[in-house]
Amino acid sequence: MTADAGTAPEPAVERWAVRIEYDGRPFVGWQRQITGLSVQQVLEEAAGRLAAGRPVTSITAGRTDAGVHATGQVAHLDFPMGTGLTGSKVRDALNFHMKPHPVAILQAMPVDSAWNARFSANRRFYRYRIVNRRGRLALDDGRVWLVKRALDIDAMNEAARHLLGRHDFTSFRASACQAKSPLRTLDRLAVMRHGEEITIEADARSFLHHQVRNMVGTLKLVGEGTWAPERVGEALRACDRRAAGPTAPPDGLYLTGVGYDPDPFSVAC
Amino acid sequence: MTADAGTAPEPAVERWAVRIEYDGRPFVGWQRQITGLSVQQVLEEAAGRLAAGRPVTSITAGRTDAGVHATGQVAHLDFPMGTGLTGSKVRDALNFHMKPHPVAILQAMPVDSAWNARFSANRRFYRYRIVNRRGRLALDDGRVWLVKRALDIDAMNEAARHLLGRHDFTSFRASACQAKSPLRTLDRLAVMRHGEEITIEADARSFLHHQVRNMVGTLKLVGEGTWAPERVGEALRACDRRAAGPTAPPDGLYLTGVGYDPDPFSVAC
Repeated sequence: MTADAGTAPEPAVERWAVRIEYDGRPFVGWQRQITGLSVQQVLEEAAGRLAAGRPVTSITAGRTDAGVHATGQVAHLDFPMGTGLTGSKVRDALNFHMKPHPVAILQAMPVDSAWNARFSANRRFYRYRIVNRRGRLALDDGRVWLVKRALDIDAMNEAARHLLGRHDFTSFRASACQAKSPLRTLDRLAVMRHGEEITIEADARSFLHHQVRNMVGTLKLVGEGTWAPERVGEALRACDRRAAGPTAPPDGLYLTGVGYDPDPFSVAC
Repeated sequence: MTADAGTAPEPAVERWAVRIEYDGRPFVGWQRQITGLSVQQVLEEAAGRLAAGRPVTSITAGRTDAGVHATGQVAHLDFPMGTGLTGSKVRDALNFHMKPHPVAILQAMPVDSAWNARFSANRRFYRYRIVNRRGRLALDDGRVWLVKRALDIDAMNEAARHLLGRHDFTSFRASACQAKSPLRTLDRLAVMRHGEEITIEADARSFLHHQVRNMVGTLKLVGEGTWAPERVGEALRACDRRAAGPTAPPDGLYLTGVGYDPDPFSVAC
């Protein structure tokens, strides 16, 4: 970041990558909206406090919907001037200014202006949490999907295998989805049970809008025995949103990580 | 429960065992207090609704402190008259009447009047959750202990071994503890790390007041390198509360289960 005396100008913008945790419950989603408070607004306003009130813009790896949580969201922030701060200072200052909103910076790293939280990302990791029991939720209301009918995870895993690989995922895509192509490559879709909690992990380079929640809502039909596992493959091939199951609620969905090569967060700070 | 015509009277009291989950944050603790709302009050008032407003009393296996959570607390409820309900109806009705408080009945089973949630219990299982990172908590504020200094779990496990077995636990007992004897047998104290989360599991027939939190607060001193592991054995042998470490906050503590032989909850309902 230092310039040869009198030759190169200071960069106009200082870019920082941040790794973020948030509770999605109080927010309208990642993206700024006039209807309510967004994670983006909380983050950008805190960053503005480090930039003497000048606006700081952010770009994120995954624009999560209202009520969706993150344990490993990634964004970059463009400060209009040098901050003169270390990574741990940026992390702590942003955390201070974001209180009391349930958003936390886990790591902040300076990055080159060519690095982009969205376009440099080559993998997204999601986890969906289901609590499978009759009793209502006391500890995790709004943070898991409570499914009262017993789910067969072997059948759900058999169904999940029909979705792995490169496909046209039109049947699992929100009608509002703005992606140009419905083609995506799903690398992992695994269903695990630990006692009464069922976890579904999904990894891909990128996902369509609502894709994870639509896959989960469909796998739930298989788990409760309403659908045979093969029907998930048929729904995929139909390329029609009406052929797949309902959208699972946002409550259980967590963006757990974003992959980069190289990973700006691999250096401890 | 049916009586031979005209011979045996109906039992005066109908006892139910319930397995309970709660978020300890809004409560003054398990036990009724004039200072605020307790889990016991929420439970007993809901039960009173099933008894036509007549008072229902409860006894619990573990009187958790303010801010302590449970995923597997057990209590029994004495109804002054027959409810005429099945286990799933009792569970669902109690859950309905406890809304919107974060208390949930997971299971309800009719038990004999000789069965007692406290005195029939032969094991208590606790889990303590630590998040070991620099960034503040967004998702689990009030539900874990945030420790910012890096913890060495191998050293913590070495220290924990000094506490296993039958000992005078005076050094790890709250001054307000009302137990007659400070002797307890600690059967398990294990420290595990999954990424940035550290879990400490403790099992014993019973614990003294604050014993788990005092053990955790002491193990944390070892984990951060302030104490050598051997010092925990010395603190134990001192039989003096001042010789051990501070009390860990209630936020990270969960009563995860209670053992009975036979277990009234082993039958699915």
